[in-house]
Amino acid sequence: MNEFELIKLLTAGLPTNESTILGAGDDCAVLDLGLPDRWLLFKTDAVVEGIHYTATTDPGKVGHKALARCLSDVAAMAGKPVAALVTLGLPREHDPKWAQAVYVGMSDLARRYGVAIVGGETTTIPERTMLSVALLGTVDKKICLKRSGAMAGDAIFVTGELGGSIQGKHLDFDPRMEQAQWLASQFSIHAMIDISDGLAGDLRHITNSSGLGAELLADAIPLSAAALKGVKPAMQAALEDGEDFELLFTIPAREAVALLDAWKLQFTGLRLSCIGKITKNPGFILHERNRTRDIQEHGYTHFA
Amino acid sequence: MNEFELIKLLTAGLPTNESTILGAGDDCAVLDLGLPDRWLLFKTDAVVEGIHYTATTDPGKVGHKALARCLSDVAAMAGKPVAALVTLGLPREHDPKWAQAVYVGMSDLARRYGVAIVGGETTTIPERTMLSVALLGTVDKKICLKRSGAMAGDAIFVTGELGGSIQGKHLDFDPRMEQAQWLASQFSIHAMIDISDGLAGDLRHITNSSGLGAELLADAIPLSAAALKGVKPAMQAALEDGEDFELLFTIPAREAVALLDAWKLQFTGLRLSCIGKITKNPGFILHERNRTRDIQEHGYTHFA
Repeated sequence: MNEFELIKLLTAGLPTNESTILGAGDDCAVLDLGLPDRWLLFKTDAVVEGIHYTATTDPGKVGHKALARCLSDVAAMAGKPVAALVTLGLPREHDPKWAQAVYVGMSDLARRYGVAIVGGETTTIPERTMLSVALLGTVDKKICLKRSGAMAGDAIFVTGELGGSIQGKHLDFDPRMEQAQWLASQFSIHAMIDISDGLAGDLRHITNSSGLGAELLADAIPLSAAALKGVKPAMQAALEDGEDFELLFTIPAREAVALLDAWKLQFTGLRLSCIGKITKNPGFILHERNRTRDIQEHGYTHFA
Repeated sequence: MNEFELIKLLTAGLPTNESTILGAGDDCAVLDLGLPDRWLLFKTDAVVEGIHYTATTDPGKVGHKALARCLSDVAAMAGKPVAALVTLGLPREHDPKWAQAVYVGMSDLARRYGVAIVGGETTTIPERTMLSVALLGTVDKKICLKRSGAMAGDAIFVTGELGGSIQGKHLDFDPRMEQAQWLASQFSIHAMIDISDGLAGDLRHITNSSGLGAELLADAIPLSAAALKGVKPAMQAALEDGEDFELLFTIPAREAVALLDAWKLQFTGLRLSCIGKITKNPGFILHERNRTRDIQEHGYTHFA
């Protein structure tokens, strides 16, 4: 049973209540607690030594990454982060300076985004360190962006460049908070997700949730320098490497050109690429220069 | 460096913002997100195999315990729980049935308290399972109960019976939600905490936060049957055993008798005991039948 099959098993028939707008299955849970114009966004994410970082990774970057992953999910729904809680798992024998440096990295990022760190806890994990962040945010009800909502004919866009994040970006990426809020307030975004499991995996999350398919243009997919220098083919890296933390979204095709023009003025230095379209046919196809093939690549999964 | 010294180090100078009413250092963080009469309560708590349960513990009880610990913290502030996220750490080789049973135990408890489980994630931890719950609740601003606020002369009360929780209660306790809300709405509670680190440890959290001390009457401390049957002296168990998850609170002495009378009518079958008083003198004293001594016992700490 792989990670997604396990999650499907675990999340079937979970308890809900009148505050639940959106439960398991999107970047964040969405809750209505009675604020007139805004919903709450609620997210947790964990990083584990040996899986998401190593014993020798700069601890400041571990703290940065742990919070940035959650911020990226709040961004992907066009939300604003408010407050975080931190769970730190440590072996009984540990270096308090390591833990302190983790907190410095996390706090620096929190301050940049106006996020309060309001507590948490420490617990024993004998064999390795781990860090879990719970994040609370809010989002304007009118612009909240879900994974579902893509429509046949939508243009598919992605920010930045993809693949090879493991070379370094996964430890010091910036969540695309400002970009997501700008996109949601200026354009008719139909569906949005942050790329954490790889382009192929996360685009499937979008198409599966609306029963649609996608066609991608290989030449349009922005390959990162790290992907181009890597050992595996760069296109494969762009499709299946996890932890890009870029925004992937769909928009009516008629808005595509206006979006590209406005983006260039707004966000100099960050690429925005139209990489394909959403199709009524539920297939998942890549047009390469000399051939057209099914996309077999899957994103990263924890359990094989 | 022990757990509390480490937490003190990590939580010094954490980022805050205008929504923060109460950050690190109480049962829950308290946030003002603009609801007219209510604040948000925000809490995370983790249980780890080999620390909080064993590989052979009934997985339904593991799920129950993980959520109940957080519910107990929301109760201790007189709040109402709303929604939870669950982080499940699993070795690569694991039994999906175990994970499913954990979720059943947790969902059963969630339904009893009207809590929605709105998602979470699974992650790899190679050596052992772990479960972290993030819980969101709300509390009436007028009755929110903090650890601080105790006053010299207050009577100290505790619900239930203390000590020996490891014999079984730690896996199937009921959070004192209804009792806490009743107490907060009917009486002038000055300070409240749930006993997770042991009576001695958690009473110190109350007295330290107000710069006061306490005197306890040994004969008044309610000893559980498990504590009386245990290998160590029952009084020591009551003072230092963790995971009782009873309510510990202070109230003006003049309300003590009225409280005891009203409690007996309201909560038949659950003891409420007046165990001592808050003192201006910052000492921490136990009056036993034949002697008076300083309370040296400390609560459970993760790191020695």
